[in-house]
Amino acid sequence: MTRGFFIVTLIWTLYFTACNQNSPSSSPENSAEVIAGKETSDPLPSWNDGKIKQVLIGYVEEVTDTQSNNFIPVADRIATFDNDGTLWSEQPIYIQFYFAMDRVKAMAADHPEWKNQQPFKAVLENDMGELMKQGEKGLLQIVMTTHAGMTTDEFETVVSDWISIAQHPVKKRVFTELVYQPMLELIAYLKANDFKVFIVSGGGIEFMRPWTESVYGIPKDQVIGSSIKTQYDFNNGNPVLRRLAEIDLIDDKEGKPVGINRYIGRKPVFVAGNSDGDLQMMRWADSNTLKSFKLFVHHTDSIREWAYDRESHVGTFNEALDEAKAKSWMFVDMKNDWKIIYPFEKN
Amino acid sequence: MTRGFFIVTLIWTLYFTACNQNSPSSSPENSAEVIAGKETSDPLPSWNDGKIKQVLIGYVEEVTDTQSNNFIPVADRIATFDNDGTLWSEQPIYIQFYFAMDRVKAMAADHPEWKNQQPFKAVLENDMGELMKQGEKGLLQIVMTTHAGMTTDEFETVVSDWISIAQHPVKKRVFTELVYQPMLELIAYLKANDFKVFIVSGGGIEFMRPWTESVYGIPKDQVIGSSIKTQYDFNNGNPVLRRLAEIDLIDDKEGKPVGINRYIGRKPVFVAGNSDGDLQMMRWADSNTLKSFKLFVHHTDSIREWAYDRESHVGTFNEALDEAKAKSWMFVDMKNDWKIIYPFEKN
Repeated sequence: MTRGFFIVTLIWTLYFTACNQNSPSSSPENSAEVIAGKETSDPLPSWNDGKIKQVLIGYVEEVTDTQSNNFIPVADRIATFDNDGTLWSEQPIYIQFYFAMDRVKAMAADHPEWKNQQPFKAVLENDMGELMKQGEKGLLQIVMTTHAGMTTDEFETVVSDWISIAQHPVKKRVFTELVYQPMLELIAYLKANDFKVFIVSGGGIEFMRPWTESVYGIPKDQVIGSSIKTQYDFNNGNPVLRRLAEIDLIDDKEGKPVGINRYIGRKPVFVAGNSDGDLQMMRWADSNTLKSFKLFVHHTDSIREWAYDRESHVGTFNEALDEAKAKSWMFVDMKNDWKIIYPFEKN
Repeated sequence: MTRGFFIVTLIWTLYFTACNQNSPSSSPENSAEVIAGKETSDPLPSWNDGKIKQVLIGYVEEVTDTQSNNFIPVADRIATFDNDGTLWSEQPIYIQFYFAMDRVKAMAADHPEWKNQQPFKAVLENDMGELMKQGEKGLLQIVMTTHAGMTTDEFETVVSDWISIAQHPVKKRVFTELVYQPMLELIAYLKANDFKVFIVSGGGIEFMRPWTESVYGIPKDQVIGSSIKTQYDFNNGNPVLRRLAEIDLIDDKEGKPVGINRYIGRKPVFVAGNSDGDLQMMRWADSNTLKSFKLFVHHTDSIREWAYDRESHVGTFNEALDEAKAKSWMFVDMKNDWKIIYPFEKN
């Protein structure tokens, strides 16, 4: 190694090490790969070589090139990712639903009356058929009972404790293991190119925030989700926020552009989703005067994950599927475009 | 200059240049000073040497020192700044109030009936006495008339156009010139030490976002304020968000911890404010288990700015003043602690 080459290498190493320390961390297992990849290797190693990988990299290279007509200033590099079905699995039912069920069971000792009271009885008896009969009203009752009535600190502790040990009933894995490795790489790749990455999910904001930093490298203030109202209580000098049984924002469908405007204040240029719930967010990005990228994750892999779209009750992908095709938005075909689905499949 | 020293200098220059490009920019006029200052010079040049400057720097150095018992991890370095009276002047009345007045006058051509209809008549006749008689209901009517009923894009354009030319009636300066130079330096200093800096203001979120990036170096998604609801409209393929005449959040007093939780999801460690409207935010930070810093800007300079506290209708500083003293929170005495107030006083 020549002295000159050594110095250049040292400078680059310091450059990346320093900058990486200053920004909220990328997913640890991917950042090094991607950052090195920016110059020398593959930023999306779990993606098969093919059209979607090519257009993703082509887009990022184009909009970060100051010489390009489609150059996007750093402040406008806003990326929004749906969560359920886009960053982690959502079948056979949303993970937050398992959380709510487990909470009902954990709280049942203090509520002996639930043994004879719907919708709680159905949950305690694992009677999903009866639970579905309770309809939206019953589900809302379960959500509010398990998500409201405590302080924000208490709820965060409950979520953190649960997510650290609860397992997926089919995959027999801790839920946070069921994130998509190729999407972790995409998030890290966008961050390395100065995109500010947000989650915009129909799921509960306070259900996600306790673990998004460690799992996705996305800080709490870049997580947008459905929420309930809170109320400040001075509490004799130990101030708390109490979670009220009152909806604040339903961050789904028409609520996604509303949530994006509320929290971010500008239109995204990069959007990823997987269902009809993401259609309005896609249209919102599509109306950006800056060049935008609309990516749908299409669940096509019945072996490694699940295969579903138009007919599924969870993650229904029907109207948005037609519109995405008509408008030539982009698709990930999970079966054919991804080498692996989950991080634990590596090696 | 030795070769070794040259290399070290080159590395440091690249380090800071590179990292600065990656993060949302600091206020241009301060960042270089502060970044150089981190190693060699004064990070707060417009602050007189004295106790408050010393404890500010002492706090930042302590909580960023990995060897300190009070070390704060980067993810927890959340700083929240009030805006009116903390980052820019708020006398004789909030700047957003001038905006609303000017909007009524600009819209009056389309509303001939306002000549005889309160509270608009009072505004058009510059009759502040009559306007005050209209009370809260009248003011709310003016706010909703001037802030709702258009799309978010339209409102942003209106604010941007107004803020670029409207002048303060007393200071005869464009309003964005009336920001406090020492606070710009403090924001840049905190950012250089990996604090994530947010505005948490009782003012309108969409009134601030169009200019906070260029004036404070604080991006739109790090601005929290009072808000009205919006509604998504597909609008025949040109989606818009319509601003509704309905309150979403009053981000003042008890609303500040609520807003902080909604947007940031964690308690701040550094808080700056100037009035009773900031008391709950101060208490919220004070309840952080991490070492926190509570800073009040005390308006004591009747010559260069304004002098007011307990008796003022704008920026009332009474209950919070007592509590801050009792709890040994920190004060800036504007008259004695700041060399200059506004950036235009430099040289």
